[in-house]
Amino acid sequence: MTEVNQKTAYDDNNIFAKMLDGDIPCHKVYEDDKTLAFMDIMPQAEGHVLVIPKQKAVDLVDLEPEYAAAVLMTSKKVVQAQRQVFEREGVIQMQLNGSQAGQTVFHYHVHLIPSSIHELGRHAVTQADQGELADIAKRLATAISAA
Amino acid sequence: MTEVNQKTAYDDNNIFAKMLDGDIPCHKVYEDDKTLAFMDIMPQAEGHVLVIPKQKAVDLVDLEPEYAAAVLMTSKKVVQAQRQVFEREGVIQMQLNGSQAGQTVFHYHVHLIPSSIHELGRHAVTQADQGELADIAKRLATAISAA
Repeated sequence: MTEVNQKTAYDDNNIFAKMLDGDIPCHKVYEDDKTLAFMDIMPQAEGHVLVIPKQKAVDLVDLEPEYAAAVLMTSKKVVQAQRQVFEREGVIQMQLNGSQAGQTVFHYHVHLIPSSIHELGRHAVTQADQGELADIAKRLATAISAA
Repeated sequence: MTEVNQKTAYDDNNIFAKMLDGDIPCHKVYEDDKTLAFMDIMPQAEGHVLVIPKQKAVDLVDLEPEYAAAVLMTSKKVVQAQRQVFEREGVIQMQLNGSQAGQTVFHYHVHLIPSSIHELGRHAVTQADQGELADIAKRLATAISAA
């Protein structure tokens, strides 16, 4: 790690690590041996999902090839489900590297946001209703398992 | 393809297909057997790079696992080079699926933008100086080959 990067070290107690350990609940959309997909609790649009690898990666620079492939393949399943459930074509895939870019949880995560780049809300502002998130998670999970 | 998706079909004459065929020049940053990385000519921030797979994929839903891994591994090299060349930690990785999300070229492409989600400029607005792009491409390519 160079000084230039000023990169945050991996913290085993970050919120996504705790979700992976089962210490913190999440509204799960999909899970396999290498990835977990769940609802963002501060969505930038309805149906905003996060996909994380089961690897202790802070950002893209840490990600191993097998987890890179797994994260995008899970993201693909989620995008297909979002298109089906929300009856819209447009989904933004975004991933922030470094606090300077706006990253707030230092476990690599891909945002899948049914929105447009021209309408994208400000990152992580308001918390969504837990009941609504649970309902959306169920609809997306059903669409994925039916695909 | 369902009606819901209203997805654009792959067009062999799209601008990125022509770059891959060598019919249109680009400011190349990196190339391997599965990917090509080059400067975005309408950068949303200085050093904005695009990474594309050498697969005829319109969006994430079309991307094959081997190209998914390759695209993220090339993106990783580019992010490392951007951090080194621009002496900043923050890099946004973004990829738009569907015209409804703001996608304008229908060959899958990952944006790597040395910026912050809170400062991100509007997508594809002003064209950059070709000489500056060539210079940045050279600096990034040098950083990648020295890594």
